Amino acid sequence: MNTVLAGPVRPTPGAVSPSRPAALARVEGGFWAERRRINAEVSLADGPKRLEAAGNLANFRAAALLRTEGGAVPGAVSAGFAGDFQFQDSDVYKWLEAACWQLADSPDGELAAELSAEVEAVVGLVTAAQREDGYLQTYYQLGGGEPWTELGWGHELYCAGHLMQAAVAHHRATGSDRLLEAARRLADHIDSVFGPGKQVDTVCGHPEVETALVELYRTTSERRYLDLARHFIDRRGHGTLSSGADRGHDRDPGPEFWQDHTPVREATEVAGHAVRQLYLLAGAADLAAETGDPELRTAVERLWLDMAATKTYLTGAVGSRHGWEAFGDAHELPADRAYAETCAAIASIHFSWRMALLTGEARYSDLVERTLFNGFLAGAGLDGHTWLYVNPLHRRSRSHERPGDQTAHRTPWFRCACCPPNVMRLLASLPHYIATTGDDGLHLHQYATGVYGGDGLTVRVTTDYPWDGPVTVAVEEATVTGPKTLALRVPAWCTRYTLTLNGAVVEGRAESGWLRLTRSFVRGDTVRLELAMPARLTVAGPRVDAVRGCAAIERGPLVYCLEQTDQRGGLDPDGVVLDPGEPLTVDWQPGLLGGVSTVSGVGRLLAADERAGWPYRPLGTQAPQATAGVELTAVPYYAWANREAGGMRVWLPLAAPLRLP
Amino acid sequence: MNTVLAGPVRPTPGAVSPSRPAALARVEGGFWAERRRINAEVSLADGPKRLEAAGNLANFRAAALLRTEGGAVPGAVSAGFAGDFQFQDSDVYKWLEAACWQLADSPDGELAAELSAEVEAVVGLVTAAQREDGYLQTYYQLGGGEPWTELGWGHELYCAGHLMQAAVAHHRATGSDRLLEAARRLADHIDSVFGPGKQVDTVCGHPEVETALVELYRTTSERRYLDLARHFIDRRGHGTLSSGADRGHDRDPGPEFWQDHTPVREATEVAGHAVRQLYLLAGAADLAAETGDPELRTAVERLWLDMAATKTYLTGAVGSRHGWEAFGDAHELPADRAYAETCAAIASIHFSWRMALLTGEARYSDLVERTLFNGFLAGAGLDGHTWLYVNPLHRRSRSHERPGDQTAHRTPWFRCACCPPNVMRLLASLPHYIATTGDDGLHLHQYATGVYGGDGLTVRVTTDYPWDGPVTVAVEEATVTGPKTLALRVPAWCTRYTLTLNGAVVEGRAESGWLRLTRSFVRGDTVRLELAMPARLTVAGPRVDAVRGCAAIERGPLVYCLEQTDQRGGLDPDGVVLDPGEPLTVDWQPGLLGGVSTVSGVGRLLAADERAGWPYRPLGTQAPQATAGVELTAVPYYAWANREAGGMRVWLPLAAPLRLP
Repeated sequence: MNTVLAGPVRPTPGAVSPSRPAALARVEGGFWAERRRINAEVSLADGPKRLEAAGNLANFRAAALLRTEGGAVPGAVSAGFAGDFQFQDSDVYKWLEAACWQLADSPDGELAAELSAEVEAVVGLVTAAQREDGYLQTYYQLGGGEPWTELGWGHELYCAGHLMQAAVAHHRATGSDRLLEAARRLADHIDSVFGPGKQVDTVCGHPEVETALVELYRTTSERRYLDLARHFIDRRGHGTLSSGADRGHDRDPGPEFWQDHTPVREATEVAGHAVRQLYLLAGAADLAAETGDPELRTAVERLWLDMAATKTYLTGAVGSRHGWEAFGDAHELPADRAYAETCAAIASIHFSWRMALLTGEARYSDLVERTLFNGFLAGAGLDGHTWLYVNPLHRRSRSHERPGDQTAHRTPWFRCACCPPNVMRLLASLPHYIATTGDDGLHLHQYATGVYGGDGLTVRVTTDYPWDGPVTVAVEEATVTGPKTLALRVPAWCTRYTLTLNGAVVEGRAESGWLRLTRSFVRGDTVRLELAMPARLTVAGPRVDAVRGCAAIERGPLVYCLEQTDQRGGLDPDGVVLDPGEPLTVDWQPGLLGGVSTVSGVGRLLAADERAGWPYRPLGTQAPQATAGVELTAVPYYAWANREAGGMRVWLPLAAPLRLP
Repeated sequence: MNTVLAGPVRPTPGAVSPSRPAALARVEGGFWAERRRINAEVSLADGPKRLEAAGNLANFRAAALLRTEGGAVPGAVSAGFAGDFQFQDSDVYKWLEAACWQLADSPDGELAAELSAEVEAVVGLVTAAQREDGYLQTYYQLGGGEPWTELGWGHELYCAGHLMQAAVAHHRATGSDRLLEAARRLADHIDSVFGPGKQVDTVCGHPEVETALVELYRTTSERRYLDLARHFIDRRGHGTLSSGADRGHDRDPGPEFWQDHTPVREATEVAGHAVRQLYLLAGAADLAAETGDPELRTAVERLWLDMAATKTYLTGAVGSRHGWEAFGDAHELPADRAYAETCAAIASIHFSWRMALLTGEARYSDLVERTLFNGFLAGAGLDGHTWLYVNPLHRRSRSHERPGDQTAHRTPWFRCACCPPNVMRLLASLPHYIATTGDDGLHLHQYATGVYGGDGLTVRVTTDYPWDGPVTVAVEEATVTGPKTLALRVPAWCTRYTLTLNGAVVEGRAESGWLRLTRSFVRGDTVRLELAMPARLTVAGPRVDAVRGCAAIERGPLVYCLEQTDQRGGLDPDGVVLDPGEPLTVDWQPGLLGGVSTVSGVGRLLAADERAGWPYRPLGTQAPQATAGVELTAVPYYAWANREAGGMRVWLPLAAPLRLP
């Protein structure tokens, strides 16, 4: 088993990052282990069937056949291409990447053997389809048009990037160069085509290849790939994309959508298509790590802060608008019409994690935690078979949804199936987002039962997180003599905590989110962090218009929501307000939603729906709320929409009336 | 001058409507006279140039040429068709209709002579383009495809409806049958094509022909047109439309969009594309008036109430979602992302006015008033040259707008130019939305200086409405002996008013919105209604999530807003909260925005923008507001966006903090 380098995002020794993902990172129990088990046994196992049914694999077969028969037929979409989107190959690559991370983590057993066989079969399909010159995208090979002429919607570099990431995962998991060679040939082809004075001097309408090229550089040590990543990052924002002129799109989404409106180094706010924006910034953070470029680092820090402070939902989700799947204005965070694409949450985690590595700052992992447990995880059904594409924070019981994929109902697969394999690859690689090592020692960014270590310090973590606050960290191996630091992140949501070492209380407070314990650790040393985890009420700042006068229930890293099905008498969550003067109670419910702690509070009934008349009235004449309290039961947001459809609210209006003069 | 029947919506003697538009209706001064003057002198005069520049008129010329040369070339869009949309002919028809209402109102003078010449020239173009069999739509005649095969996006019946309405206006204004004959030939052709067992048995993707056919019936007494309207209304909602399969649209908007999801008689809520929904309901209300169909009447009453009570903005605007220009869920009324299309406000006025005629109830005219002065009028720039397509109630100072037409910046014309000529036809026909007559007497629904009458009672109204509350109603003619009722609507926003007759106070309160004065009126009788018009603060019901904790400033029928440009130091309206304990003051500002009353209040500054960090915090730890008061100056919402761009808010967060337990 190759535990070193078996995960994503591995800065080179020359990178400026003070933190590197821990070489050893295994989740062995608890919350995430169970979600990862379902990911492996259900979602990943199901992937090839889905990709077969949707035609993605058939496209590779058709392209391979065409290749052996002698060339494509440009200019007309072949009847041979299955699916509606130019980027369908990427679904295959993302599944491949996910499967490889899973194999890297758990290479033994029957399931692994089956998965490995599937992986190698798909790798065979992919490599067979690649053209002699290195080009590979089945849509264009099957007659969709001339390669490299539709940079806006073509997604050729996007798909290439996902192939590179899959190839890196395949190489790191198996040691094989089989897919890596294909990725290199494609990267070399791209390098020959793109750049000043070359055939094409613009960028892809969907960033992704930038971060992939940095990873390819990290794996191959080929400097040209890093240079190409830098070229693509710096070329962007100069309006070189031809925008909506591509076939099949009758509306021009504008340069923000493509991330071609302003150079990354000059941008002051995140904007446009959320996934595109954040994949680009993940690549920029990678580049800043490898080059030490201070201007680029300042830019990604500035843009991350703009995102976190003005355009992120309480769940960590991003992308407020259905229209063009875009970031909205600052503080435009509607709960009901939140788009909050699952892929955007994943992209946010990618970006934040790279910022954590680049800076060592805890705030980035605070957001990773929040997004993982809420905005991201809601995208994956508890059954491993169904998915959410959009993740609103409010669903009315009588909701009008647009037809198509982007609804708030769990769906087995999507016509545009970007999210499911993206969830798979994050869950499969999740252990590698938990701990880092640096010159100082070992840093625990997230808390999950398992073993983490590197550079001479290895610990075993045991915890019931996120259901309970104690985290036990036992030193399993301490091979380096002299003092080392064990750094434990104290989540920003936590206001009370205690730390003990071998049973004795350790005084001292966290600094900038890190509790640092420095000593010469010996095997058997046991550190115990107790994070107080009362249910709490959270409000938004006064500029967040959509949820003014509301509070959300949170506990630990989890955001809660009211689902209609949990309320007595099927009470619609839109018909109540929360009384903040009444206590919140927490109950562990092992039989509910795979085992969750619920949080209960007291609400007051609103007067009957104003369907009877005009809903606006003079200040001071508001209808009174019913005084009898009604119990409200909240479940973790990540688990919503796994039962019958009904109303759901994260933000609950507060019963306390506005005090009038 | 033909004052009888010189406006739209003229129920036949057989209609069940208790109220009919007053035969005499002339606005002769005050607020609306000025807006109508600009409409006539600038907007209407400018129309033919705009239609020429956009290619709409060229399409008719090309179609006429093709006709004389022998037939169309189906199957390929001819290079001869100018513009992007199948429905471009309707822009011409709406301008024609508007120009005809203007000519009916003001047939004399140089401006009228010019307008009349333009009208007859355009009528000549239109009639020359019509095929021998009566078919007329230049898009399909110029090779856009086979007529009557793309009912979803084709807009053929929609355009036909607008032709019929233009023809009715032309006939009522001029007495000419020239355009009316063309409309009849087209209607007869439609009647021969559509229906059970005929060539096509579905409906148009965009309702409009229904209300037009009823008006054509009213003008021609041809019963078949009423029957055809009924057929189209009852055929709808059975899923007969082929939906998104039409060319040029890669996404399926679903049956709600087309108003094909449920039959009108069974529908419980307004849904789908707002303009489509409301044009359909206007037609249904017309049909209910002419047939007395109680089931249909109940349905339109139910749907109007659903709209007014759960899906209407404070401005009267409707259509919450940018996506498919749709109604949202009940109470989904975001201020910032309000779509609130100008055409939807017009459609709402059409629908409400027909409901007022059908029922005689004042609440419908309450909504007409609110929509006219706010959601509708905001769509028309003060200069008569520029327009808004969307009418949000909040614009952030740094706003990301999607490219294309649907922005909140005033634009000289639109690629999809439905709104400008729609505004023109409503302003041109506005006098006919003010007064009705019935067996009992004369009813004043709106207050505008002018002369209104019919059925033996004529009054002259003098008022500074909406800037001041007194309305003087002097009887000019009372030719019928015996008691008659003069009914004055007391707006729902008004809580204090006095009524005098010839100087003596008349006791008695309004009943269901109507103050009724019944007596044998004689010429010279003077009734004076004084509506108290203090500036006031309005809040939304507790289910309107988007504006919880906020109040809006209103005065009389006007909704107010803060525009950044009016605030001292260019203060961003997003940076303040309103102190509801401080008084509001009203100032008449003759030099501002064509003359407006401003309303000033006192605000408190928010703490600095939280761009510095995570915007969510524990309940009870909100940042304090600055205690020093800052003056806030509000202008009427209808006048916003006529100066430099900047932030704008209708709904202002209230300074009073939530009282915590």
